[in-house]
Amino acid sequence: MAQMQVPDQMTAVVLDSYSGAEALRVEQRPVPKPGKDEVLVKVAASPINPSDLAFLDGEYGFKNPPPVVPGGEGSGTVVAVGPGMAGRYFLGKRVACLSQGKGGGTWAEYVVTSAMGGALPLHQSVSLEQGAMSIINPLTASAFLEIAKKGGHKAIVLTAAASSLGQMVNRLGRSEGVQVISVVRRDAQVEWLKEQGATIVLNSSEADFEQQLHDACHQAEAHLAFDAVAGPMTRQLLDALPERSKVIVYSCLSYEGPQAGADHFIFEGKAIDGFWLGPWINDMNLIQILMMWRRAQKLMSTDLRSEVRVRYPFEEAEQAVKDYLSQMTGGKVLLTPSQ
Amino acid sequence: MAQMQVPDQMTAVVLDSYSGAEALRVEQRPVPKPGKDEVLVKVAASPINPSDLAFLDGEYGFKNPPPVVPGGEGSGTVVAVGPGMAGRYFLGKRVACLSQGKGGGTWAEYVVTSAMGGALPLHQSVSLEQGAMSIINPLTASAFLEIAKKGGHKAIVLTAAASSLGQMVNRLGRSEGVQVISVVRRDAQVEWLKEQGATIVLNSSEADFEQQLHDACHQAEAHLAFDAVAGPMTRQLLDALPERSKVIVYSCLSYEGPQAGADHFIFEGKAIDGFWLGPWINDMNLIQILMMWRRAQKLMSTDLRSEVRVRYPFEEAEQAVKDYLSQMTGGKVLLTPSQ
Repeated sequence: MAQMQVPDQMTAVVLDSYSGAEALRVEQRPVPKPGKDEVLVKVAASPINPSDLAFLDGEYGFKNPPPVVPGGEGSGTVVAVGPGMAGRYFLGKRVACLSQGKGGGTWAEYVVTSAMGGALPLHQSVSLEQGAMSIINPLTASAFLEIAKKGGHKAIVLTAAASSLGQMVNRLGRSEGVQVISVVRRDAQVEWLKEQGATIVLNSSEADFEQQLHDACHQAEAHLAFDAVAGPMTRQLLDALPERSKVIVYSCLSYEGPQAGADHFIFEGKAIDGFWLGPWINDMNLIQILMMWRRAQKLMSTDLRSEVRVRYPFEEAEQAVKDYLSQMTGGKVLLTPSQ
Repeated sequence: MAQMQVPDQMTAVVLDSYSGAEALRVEQRPVPKPGKDEVLVKVAASPINPSDLAFLDGEYGFKNPPPVVPGGEGSGTVVAVGPGMAGRYFLGKRVACLSQGKGGGTWAEYVVTSAMGGALPLHQSVSLEQGAMSIINPLTASAFLEIAKKGGHKAIVLTAAASSLGQMVNRLGRSEGVQVISVVRRDAQVEWLKEQGATIVLNSSEADFEQQLHDACHQAEAHLAFDAVAGPMTRQLLDALPERSKVIVYSCLSYEGPQAGADHFIFEGKAIDGFWLGPWINDMNLIQILMMWRRAQKLMSTDLRSEVRVRYPFEEAEQAVKDYLSQMTGGKVLLTPSQ
């Protein structure tokens, strides 16, 4: 195992049971060892994403026996590599990294990830802090635009559009000529997104929201919606969209299953589908991943930038998660090692 | 208008309001006149299909102001044609016909339909009685198998499988090498379908149905389900099917919207889609329609045959619908003119 100086123990955030922020504690754990074609990353920063919240509640796509270290993505420097050629390239490099879903997440001083797509080299123009938020949201936003363009869509609908991801999709949409109909829940978010250049922003709390959404979808000829809310929102989208439209559910902020009527599918030719970044990336080959990554890195200070609202040391993870839960828009909450 | 002898008035079943069998009455109405590229069919027989029941309840894909004549399909002889070349071919011919969704249905002595796909010539081997049931179910069954084969599916799941359509799909599946997992609600239907050659038939009323369905789907590698029930059944299908499967909803016998969890779409890569015969046919050109029709006609006495359980004159339409509602499997209920 090629490596730089690595201690035996590290500070890590640990989830004791899948019951949310209350089940988080901080402890000393052994630094994990990279296996074949894996790398060990000394973590610089790691964001709290909506998918992390789902993970804490046991509602994410995988669930290993606790205790587990949460954290889906982060950034840092590769300080050790396991056997195999793939890892060698990374030694000493600054990278963004995805956790592997085995319970060893990025909310720790060190994390092991795959050299075959789990670690991606940061461009010199991208700081470690921006790099920490450069995979999940930026590649999801890139994927949404790619799905829209492949399907020939001139316009898309996006719910929970005031999120970091929502802002990226709005900016990318403008750059790439795809109109974005943004759905948010509060007037302040409407104004705020419009200040940033969004043109069609609807407030789902308004009494005539359904009519507004219907009119916007038909005027813009939007046949595709990306839905982070599910529950009744999915039904509102299916009602509003023209015939032969699709709703792609990618998160479940309502904590309810998507609602729909049989008529939507049978007589209106509509469909519900899903999006999860992991399988979407896995369906690509390494060349495609690296090309997409390169495009995304170039946009990291413009269309795909993330704002940071506040930083917490790992020791204050519980408070950090609660802070994020109280305000999920207006900039990310970052976790960092306390040095 | 070229024509044979046609009276001015006809006996027709009429629906007074979209409130089911009780709203049916029989009256004398003017015989409709065929317009450009339309034909007038003297009706020989017309079945009661599940889609007719939805129509009577106002739950079908279109809904014209009552009073309307119900009836989605039938058979008969073309006795008059409107202007245009297309109709001429049909004059005097025995045809199967679809109603046009304008409220002038097939439960009447005469019906007008389009010469461009609404009337299809019956092969000499097909009786007028079989011909009356030769479009909706046979072409739907043909479509299901075509969708399955185009998607490379070796196995499919089918709910409400004891229906006439279900039997056709089972027979076609055997002929074309696609395994069919049939879901029914009663033990008698299990035995009955098995006697006819179905190999995998599950009873959704059994306590361990969900486990049985899961095991059957995984063993047969079924990634596609055709669901006529919706409601909780759709969720059971989504739970049971392997990752990256699709449920195609084509009817709503439960009178509930399809149920699903966000996880099905996001983390399991599953989707819900719909099927409606009309748009599916409209997406084809006339050559494709006629080729499909020819194949289906050849199978009309074997894989695509329908059994007739009982015949009623139009005058007894209300009783006929109630009879069908009381027993939707075991053969079709036919309506005929009383001559």
